[in-house]
Amino acid sequence: MKKIFFTVGPSQLYPTVVGHIKKALKKNIPSISHRGDQFMKIYEETCQSLKRLLAIPKNYHIFFLGSSLESMERILQNCADKHSFHFIDGAFSQKLYQFSEKLGLKPEKVEIIPEVGFDFAKVKIPKKTELICLTHNETSSGMVIPVKEIYRLRKKYPKKLIAVDIVSSAPYLHLDFSKVDAAFFSGQKGFGLPAGLGVLIVSDRAVKKAKNVGTYHNFASLLKYELKNQSPETPNVLTIYLLGEVTKDMLKKGIAKIRKETEEKAKLIYDFFDKNKENKPFIQEKRFRSSTTIVINIKNGSKKVLKKLKTHGIVVGSGYGENKEKQIRIANFPSHSKQAVQKLLKFF
Amino acid sequence: MKKIFFTVGPSQLYPTVVGHIKKALKKNIPSISHRGDQFMKIYEETCQSLKRLLAIPKNYHIFFLGSSLESMERILQNCADKHSFHFIDGAFSQKLYQFSEKLGLKPEKVEIIPEVGFDFAKVKIPKKTELICLTHNETSSGMVIPVKEIYRLRKKYPKKLIAVDIVSSAPYLHLDFSKVDAAFFSGQKGFGLPAGLGVLIVSDRAVKKAKNVGTYHNFASLLKYELKNQSPETPNVLTIYLLGEVTKDMLKKGIAKIRKETEEKAKLIYDFFDKNKENKPFIQEKRFRSSTTIVINIKNGSKKVLKKLKTHGIVVGSGYGENKEKQIRIANFPSHSKQAVQKLLKFF
Repeated sequence: MKKIFFTVGPSQLYPTVVGHIKKALKKNIPSISHRGDQFMKIYEETCQSLKRLLAIPKNYHIFFLGSSLESMERILQNCADKHSFHFIDGAFSQKLYQFSEKLGLKPEKVEIIPEVGFDFAKVKIPKKTELICLTHNETSSGMVIPVKEIYRLRKKYPKKLIAVDIVSSAPYLHLDFSKVDAAFFSGQKGFGLPAGLGVLIVSDRAVKKAKNVGTYHNFASLLKYELKNQSPETPNVLTIYLLGEVTKDMLKKGIAKIRKETEEKAKLIYDFFDKNKENKPFIQEKRFRSSTTIVINIKNGSKKVLKKLKTHGIVVGSGYGENKEKQIRIANFPSHSKQAVQKLLKFF
Repeated sequence: MKKIFFTVGPSQLYPTVVGHIKKALKKNIPSISHRGDQFMKIYEETCQSLKRLLAIPKNYHIFFLGSSLESMERILQNCADKHSFHFIDGAFSQKLYQFSEKLGLKPEKVEIIPEVGFDFAKVKIPKKTELICLTHNETSSGMVIPVKEIYRLRKKYPKKLIAVDIVSSAPYLHLDFSKVDAAFFSGQKGFGLPAGLGVLIVSDRAVKKAKNVGTYHNFASLLKYELKNQSPETPNVLTIYLLGEVTKDMLKKGIAKIRKETEEKAKLIYDFFDKNKENKPFIQEKRFRSSTTIVINIKNGSKKVLKKLKTHGIVVGSGYGENKEKQIRIANFPSHSKQAVQKLLKFF
């Protein structure tokens, strides 16, 4: 039976990926040198396409890493010497805070109860903070932080660096990248790629301020190679190629259309569960509801529901951590068609 | 035209890889959860197969990282607090030494002139050294360090940890892993896989002594997840799957046969160039000659030769760094058939 994956990443492959993999094999992409012209052209085109799709400023840098956890580590190592400040609205923002502690920084945090939201205007960030960290879209809780809250922080604290986890909201999110200094995502979420590639976008300001702690993946080393369209190490060449191809496909479709479709599908799902008697959206406040990772409280436990869906070829994520059996998480990525979403909802 | 890649990595795919990729796509491997039963089984089987193929002791641990440069960084962060000692016989052993400096250690080194070799018995390693680093097979120079020299160090310095770069000699090398504490390679060399997966093998002793510097990829974090057949981050699931499948294929063929074929092909190449008037093997001393990455001095410059080969669909590596135009590097991996090697040699 053909399966549909609504899991929050790895997830359903973007519809064109299988074709691109086959083409890549014919073109010997996995065998080409990571120091040769053919690869450098792939690197350059992938970055250019990403910059066009996401409207990333020209003077921003794109680095390819192994995962988004690596992006977290590298951002903290490079963008803060002593103090980072964190908005915690789930397990992944919490992880970034813990990474900061492990790296010997003295982080501070404000805890958000995701289901009710938060008044961002009230927050006071200490003078000593070098780096402000936000998780735009919390894959664990399904809470989204509206981008205007990020812009407000930028205005209030123009000299501090701002890092944003966009792991499960890219490419859907509409972010003015000129107002942040680091943003990162992974291929296996919204781009519908095989896992194993982290993408880190950084401002020129962040690169200039970088502490360059570490070795091959400090910002100075990454920058040195990026300038010649290479990575310090032999990177995940195949997935960089696939990211480039999928991004081109998305450019052809148009980011406006992708956003519109994502919102329509999200509305379908939220409207359905708002009216459902037993199973309700976890995030109550609408402006904090993620459009891409939708968390639903399941009255009678997620286990039975997931099992039933599976017998129909539909794979949905369980809740995260302590909510594993109380919730389900539904990915709503560009890979998911409206028809697939409608099919999914029929089972509730 | 169908190409053959004799480049030292990325290189020719192992003959079964394309089939395994197609099977993986049919089985939705890129979409499965990295926390689910199916992935955990793949992880476990891949590690078990690798342990069988390379005769890795049962109580050793296998961690999946992003690249071999990452393995270098993680070994240094975890296995040494102040002092590492390095045998330098090319650019990659030099890189490990530089990483040690960048991480704030005080490394020492002994420099080897690869073309003439070295008397390992003479070396005295300081008392303060915590970690001894060797590059078994130098991809840049084509020098191999005989494994008995590693065993001799183990006997002489039983309390120090030993790390060995086996990046371009695995799976061919015949190493008693119980005599080393860390060894690492990447998929895109001898296993003939797409790039983007680093494999780090560590002894229980190394894990117990680990300083656990860093975050998600310190040894404690890697171990915690390895014990449940997972990685801390979403790993390169597809390539872990492919590594497992190719390792199983190699087990079926038998490591003894793979080693024998590798040595026969290496002999073909070295004998040919030993008799060649213009182009000679770079490494003079036979016991220091690599069987898997063979470096040849090209009298009239590598450029013309590489260009000519390319017109016949044969891609060979240039020399490394300052030897780029003076040498070529020929990979002799399990992916390369005797027929392909014979075809290559005809053009000299």
